[in-house]
Amino acid sequence: MSQSRMVEIEQNILSKNDEYAAANRTYFIEREILALNLVSSPGSGKTTLLTRTIEGLKNSLSMSVIEGDQQTANDADRIRETGTRAVQINTGKGCHLDAHMVGHALETLEPENNSAVFIENVGNLVCPAAFDLGEAHKVAIFSVTEGEDKPLKYPDMFHAADVMILNKIDLLPYLDFKVGQCIDYSRRVNPDIEVLQVSARSGEGMDAWFSWIEKERKKIGQRQAAQ
Amino acid sequence: MSQSRMVEIEQNILSKNDEYAAANRTYFIEREILALNLVSSPGSGKTTLLTRTIEGLKNSLSMSVIEGDQQTANDADRIRETGTRAVQINTGKGCHLDAHMVGHALETLEPENNSAVFIENVGNLVCPAAFDLGEAHKVAIFSVTEGEDKPLKYPDMFHAADVMILNKIDLLPYLDFKVGQCIDYSRRVNPDIEVLQVSARSGEGMDAWFSWIEKERKKIGQRQAAQ
Repeated sequence: MSQSRMVEIEQNILSKNDEYAAANRTYFIEREILALNLVSSPGSGKTTLLTRTIEGLKNSLSMSVIEGDQQTANDADRIRETGTRAVQINTGKGCHLDAHMVGHALETLEPENNSAVFIENVGNLVCPAAFDLGEAHKVAIFSVTEGEDKPLKYPDMFHAADVMILNKIDLLPYLDFKVGQCIDYSRRVNPDIEVLQVSARSGEGMDAWFSWIEKERKKIGQRQAAQ
Repeated sequence: MSQSRMVEIEQNILSKNDEYAAANRTYFIEREILALNLVSSPGSGKTTLLTRTIEGLKNSLSMSVIEGDQQTANDADRIRETGTRAVQINTGKGCHLDAHMVGHALETLEPENNSAVFIENVGNLVCPAAFDLGEAHKVAIFSVTEGEDKPLKYPDMFHAADVMILNKIDLLPYLDFKVGQCIDYSRRVNPDIEVLQVSARSGEGMDAWFSWIEKERKKIGQRQAAQ
């Protein structure tokens, strides 16, 4: 297949995705729902971050979760154990969620107005960067065990994300990871990226993450009030 | 685009890839070169494993490296610092190496007869599983910081690999990772997978990996002698 034919196919897929993403975005805005697309490598701690976020915010915020994985419903099961609604999408051979899958998941999930929807994407630092799901923000979870050079090696993802959660900082004493250099690298590909240092396991830094969510929820409320 | 049209395009891409992979395989076999395709999540420690492998085997084996990353030539630079030849492939938006890219890299690399070629794929637990590069084996590097459930959630990769290198075992005292369960999960998707527990950083377990490489090299020599 010719290169130009491949590019054309890619553009078709992405423009179709963008239509579905726009519909999802309208859905979220009309209901004042904060939708966050959590992206990362496999094993960066997305699901643990989510279960701890649910524990931390459940008295002040209605939340629900869309889980993406190639196989298994393990992650949705982990979320449901916290008493929170979750829908699992299995992508099979697919390396990312797309907006069409998310739209269908929303029909089942039926999130409450004024709530937060967390979309946990397939663990993959490449493919999910290109697919808008209609979220307010992509949040890149990046674990300190992965090496500080990854923002330069996978720039699309760190460029697409508005926030980087530097996770597993409880392990820093046992690693050679340079936090300052990692932040520097991430800002080279995205000067505006916000960085939060947390350990979902120990709870360190989680308050700053909760405050960030609250700040973003207020923005959505204000935007609706201004209309 | 219809689902059947998408499947057709996917099949075209894979069958084209298989032609290039077959040419690469012939190239390797004719020269008695052991080619290993190293696959993993980003940050599992592939490059450190490679530099330590080169240090450990450089007196007994000629080696060269093909590096795949979305961006940067950092990894090829790290390999060249060891005095070993390396070619960097940047995949741009692409989430995996393909056999055509590897064929071109071989023209530049010109590996010696009776040597080993390590192909470090793009860090990604999904896409590289589907693309044969002409290697003798896919070697999945999996770090104990990633969680023991990943073989079930990304089964294609662990099914495609002949060996799993469980890396960063020096960090086990600081994690909740269950080694036995991880091995059990990986054998559910691939009963024949060989598992090596190593720490590329501390050197623990590296001798078993070197012995495995030596064993595979002998097989190639014997296959040639029998022809």
